[in-house]
Amino acid sequence: MMYAIGVDLGGTKTAAGVVSGDGEVLFSETIPTLNRDGGDAILDATAALVSSLMVRAQAEGLDVVGVGVGSAGVIDAAHGVVVSATDAILGWAGTELTAGLARRLGLAPEAVQAVNDVHAHALGESWTGSAAGTASSLLVAFGTGVGGSFVLAGHPVLGHRYAGGHVGHFASPYAFHEGQAVPCVCGGAGHVEAIASGPAIREAYVRLGGKEPVLDARGVFALAGASDAIAIKAVGICAAAAGQAVGGLANILDPEVVVVSGGLSDAGAPWWRPMERALRAELLPALLGLPVLPAKLGNAAAMVGAARLVLTTPS
Amino acid sequence: MMYAIGVDLGGTKTAAGVVSGDGEVLFSETIPTLNRDGGDAILDATAALVSSLMVRAQAEGLDVVGVGVGSAGVIDAAHGVVVSATDAILGWAGTELTAGLARRLGLAPEAVQAVNDVHAHALGESWTGSAAGTASSLLVAFGTGVGGSFVLAGHPVLGHRYAGGHVGHFASPYAFHEGQAVPCVCGGAGHVEAIASGPAIREAYVRLGGKEPVLDARGVFALAGASDAIAIKAVGICAAAAGQAVGGLANILDPEVVVVSGGLSDAGAPWWRPMERALRAELLPALLGLPVLPAKLGNAAAMVGAARLVLTTPS
Repeated sequence: MMYAIGVDLGGTKTAAGVVSGDGEVLFSETIPTLNRDGGDAILDATAALVSSLMVRAQAEGLDVVGVGVGSAGVIDAAHGVVVSATDAILGWAGTELTAGLARRLGLAPEAVQAVNDVHAHALGESWTGSAAGTASSLLVAFGTGVGGSFVLAGHPVLGHRYAGGHVGHFASPYAFHEGQAVPCVCGGAGHVEAIASGPAIREAYVRLGGKEPVLDARGVFALAGASDAIAIKAVGICAAAAGQAVGGLANILDPEVVVVSGGLSDAGAPWWRPMERALRAELLPALLGLPVLPAKLGNAAAMVGAARLVLTTPS
Repeated sequence: MMYAIGVDLGGTKTAAGVVSGDGEVLFSETIPTLNRDGGDAILDATAALVSSLMVRAQAEGLDVVGVGVGSAGVIDAAHGVVVSATDAILGWAGTELTAGLARRLGLAPEAVQAVNDVHAHALGESWTGSAAGTASSLLVAFGTGVGGSFVLAGHPVLGHRYAGGHVGHFASPYAFHEGQAVPCVCGGAGHVEAIASGPAIREAYVRLGGKEPVLDARGVFALAGASDAIAIKAVGICAAAAGQAVGGLANILDPEVVVVSGGLSDAGAPWWRPMERALRAELLPALLGLPVLPAKLGNAAAMVGAARLVLTTPS
């Protein structure tokens, strides 16, 4: 059996684990991402994390073939470079992610591979999660933002500029309020992310006239659970926007299955039911039987998918 | 040099031509599609058309290696069967397109291949048209309907149910009038096709209170050219809806280039300008330089792309 280190490098924390050739996480560790300290500091800390896992793997006699990284930001997977990143990780853009890690770890350059974390997440679910065994899958994650990845024949479709999967940035009829497009974090307006993300649920509650002090989507869900009419309406609108978006994407891409993940999908039926209803209302007749599945691997998905990058195809 | 017969089988007419291994159409013929007579009659007529071209090719000493078909309807490309089709071609659904043609022509089954005509169109443009030499391209055609195809590494992404490319059936904020979603031909409502197709331009003109007797988009363009304010508004809205949709799709798929085709793209600047403005307004920063190109091959695109299906990769 072959093993690889999978790294999930996010804006607040970095998790890494030893993953077997059949996708099992043997052990893992998590550190805070040094998101104010720049690329070199992050690479130093990540290399130390990976190194400690490699020492432990060697002690247990495991054959580690490489390191796969799923990282926040737009990642040039061919060169292992961070093309761009938000201010959530200062100084990350421009970092030579794979070369920097390989050098620090004394590995051959090709033994370290990286993709964007949402693509890693989708690759994990398509390998051993909800979409295991499928020829194609579309994963859409609804959380702090809205991201996605279309996995075709075992490979995420990364896009020509490695910007593919930005499924939160197309127009949503729900992202309008009193005729005005709701601003989106990308600088545009009226986008899916502006109405279907977690923060958007709180914003929708406020926009609709909600007066209770809520900090986040969780607060709105709690109010909705206590029969607050405005909270119920806000959740319903935002979930329907999410479902409508995924349904439209399914019509365009015709994946074998759809996987819906992210923090909002964990909110259960109050979000999932209106989301799936709107999704199915959108589907063309050819797609009526489309499986719509919750993700299965939880927080481990991106780590597992990242490891998959350096594990050769099992037969 | 190898040659193939490319067939573009549409709702009203069927064109076929002899296409060279470098994408040149040597000669072609067109017949009406027997769209009221059922699958067998259509196959008989198509086989006769192809046969006459093959006779002429043989007389000229050309080595014809097979027949590629781009056909209206959802086409199961693996089995060469028409999965579904609209009433525009009665009795077409269920037809064994490639096997039926191969038998009539005395060809080996694998010498006849078929895909949906929009995929063939996109494949043609990606082979020798506007997207020639690109690693990926998204073609969107705005005409009687709205269809598209994402061509990745030389292959259209057909979808698990061969329903991929239905880019007219996702939600458009423009496809609402006085708070009501505009009905779509698919049975849904509020879709891109309901506001961005050719017929939608005439419908928008009428909805906006236009009183002149117009039969089709061409009539609305003529009025707009004569400074009719309602016609100008209708064209502007429908073109912006088209551009917004393509921009959102580009954010999702990140193709190297976008090709916009179909009858509306031939209307020139009055449609193209507002379309491209809305498209670019939608793009994420990573895609700002995205080339947005008119199609180049005109009516020959699907024929050329269909022929490509049976011509091996030129080096």
